[in-house]
Amino acid sequence: MAVVDICEVGPRDGLQNEDVILSPEVRGELCDRLAASGLPRIEAVSFVREDLVPAMAGAEEVLNRTRRDPAVLWAALVLNEKGYQRAVEAGVDEVRFAFPVTDTYAARNQRTTVTDAIDTAIRIVERSRDDGIASAITLSAAFGCPFEGPVSRDHVLRITDRVASAQPDTVIFADSIGVGVPRQVRELVGAAVGASAVGCHFHNTRNTGYANALAAVEAGASILDASIGGLGGCPFAPGATGNIATEDLVYLLEGMGFATGIDLDKLRQCSAWVADRVGHELPSLVARAGDPCGVATTAQLTP
Amino acid sequence: MAVVDICEVGPRDGLQNEDVILSPEVRGELCDRLAASGLPRIEAVSFVREDLVPAMAGAEEVLNRTRRDPAVLWAALVLNEKGYQRAVEAGVDEVRFAFPVTDTYAARNQRTTVTDAIDTAIRIVERSRDDGIASAITLSAAFGCPFEGPVSRDHVLRITDRVASAQPDTVIFADSIGVGVPRQVRELVGAAVGASAVGCHFHNTRNTGYANALAAVEAGASILDASIGGLGGCPFAPGATGNIATEDLVYLLEGMGFATGIDLDKLRQCSAWVADRVGHELPSLVARAGDPCGVATTAQLTP
Repeated sequence: MAVVDICEVGPRDGLQNEDVILSPEVRGELCDRLAASGLPRIEAVSFVREDLVPAMAGAEEVLNRTRRDPAVLWAALVLNEKGYQRAVEAGVDEVRFAFPVTDTYAARNQRTTVTDAIDTAIRIVERSRDDGIASAITLSAAFGCPFEGPVSRDHVLRITDRVASAQPDTVIFADSIGVGVPRQVRELVGAAVGASAVGCHFHNTRNTGYANALAAVEAGASILDASIGGLGGCPFAPGATGNIATEDLVYLLEGMGFATGIDLDKLRQCSAWVADRVGHELPSLVARAGDPCGVATTAQLTP
Repeated sequence: MAVVDICEVGPRDGLQNEDVILSPEVRGELCDRLAASGLPRIEAVSFVREDLVPAMAGAEEVLNRTRRDPAVLWAALVLNEKGYQRAVEAGVDEVRFAFPVTDTYAARNQRTTVTDAIDTAIRIVERSRDDGIASAITLSAAFGCPFEGPVSRDHVLRITDRVASAQPDTVIFADSIGVGVPRQVRELVGAAVGASAVGCHFHNTRNTGYANALAAVEAGASILDASIGGLGGCPFAPGATGNIATEDLVYLLEGMGFATGIDLDKLRQCSAWVADRVGHELPSLVARAGDPCGVATTAQLTP
């Protein structure tokens, strides 16, 4: 049975886009609850400027408060080498460096250019190898840009080739604004599968996120980002949903015969817990509807 | 370019599961607005007992109030031959007879057995041929039953074979409670494609509805049901979403290269209009987020 590693990004991409700011203590507890459900990877924090992203303040404290379950790969997002240094000092297992594939978005998000960001990515991959930690490079807006519109596969693949030459452990294609469709996913992932593992990061902003996730793993992606409950939102579309929800993704993948190693009941309890913390219902539909037929976990159907 | 016919079921399955009851006048206007967006098929009404389903009362009046755009195939749901007779007298273009594939659900929903319902289906197909109208037979709970749990593909295919022997224009597989995954859709649709056209009817109760819809058309289904805005709900899961949303399905299908013939902007206006009528935001995500990149309508991507 094919295995898909889900990387839980609720503590980072999810909480970063919620109105309520949770304390490092609560965020650490969230991470431990997520780890207890069997999630193999958790993007727990981002090392960014706290004055710019107050929801992510106290990254070191969040990590210190978790039990750091050794079965989990503990990842952190960084946007530059300063962030990388903090991540290394905090002892993360994997550093994830993200940058947009368009210059307009790169300038607005990180005050950089795509060319400079590629150079930074390569340096971070090399440094992480020296430092003995894993590296993942995320190409944001790989399926469409909020400022420049459509993004071509060939453009993304040219950037992928340059990044892959440094041999990161993983290259991740992110549909940061949730405009992509499975056709794009198949074309991009299918062409990129190679030396590095391929991951994907989908938002369900236009209800294509789960179809995209399935297309990705069927095209060879082995890592999928998701956010508990669908926690978070989209900074470019107020009121829109954010990341695909972890429990809904588990329901889909297990039903398709992929092994995730995750306990769906525990995950749903975790989703209810974090919904209470942020004070509103989350977008996950499995959280609301449950699994009355056991389709996700019953391989043998009965007449 | 492959064509997919979307059958709009918002006026029927959608409104049947809303708390607010709309008048036949408003329901007729909704149908005309839907027709103006280019929808090729509209399930406008159901001919059922008005004391049992008050939201569907006045089916004849709804049809009389529409302009009956001749470009649209005007369909009606019936659950027995009495309903069939009313539908014929009201002059619909297509009658759709639905029954569950499990005895427990069939007893609770229609006080019948699967065996008796198959006989009724065959009689309705034969009568519709004599009456010169199209027929579609919907197999409800084809991917899982709220009472009996998992439903096997072979069980559904045995029923399909018996129904198909009468040569209806269309056989429709309905995931009435939204538990199915694309694996099941591919297996069922792939095995059933033959003399009759195959349609599918998905609910997005667990966020698998759009992946299922894509799997269906890629496996050979040519008709997909959807509800404007995702109008409606699920009687078995309070608070859960209902049918997949028409505008979200159009976004996905057009992005995948399927032609729907539908004007997405007009459809979104229609969605906003009906959201005002029922008095709450609808589940459609395209309605909230829009299409900033034009991915759905831009075949040529630019670097």
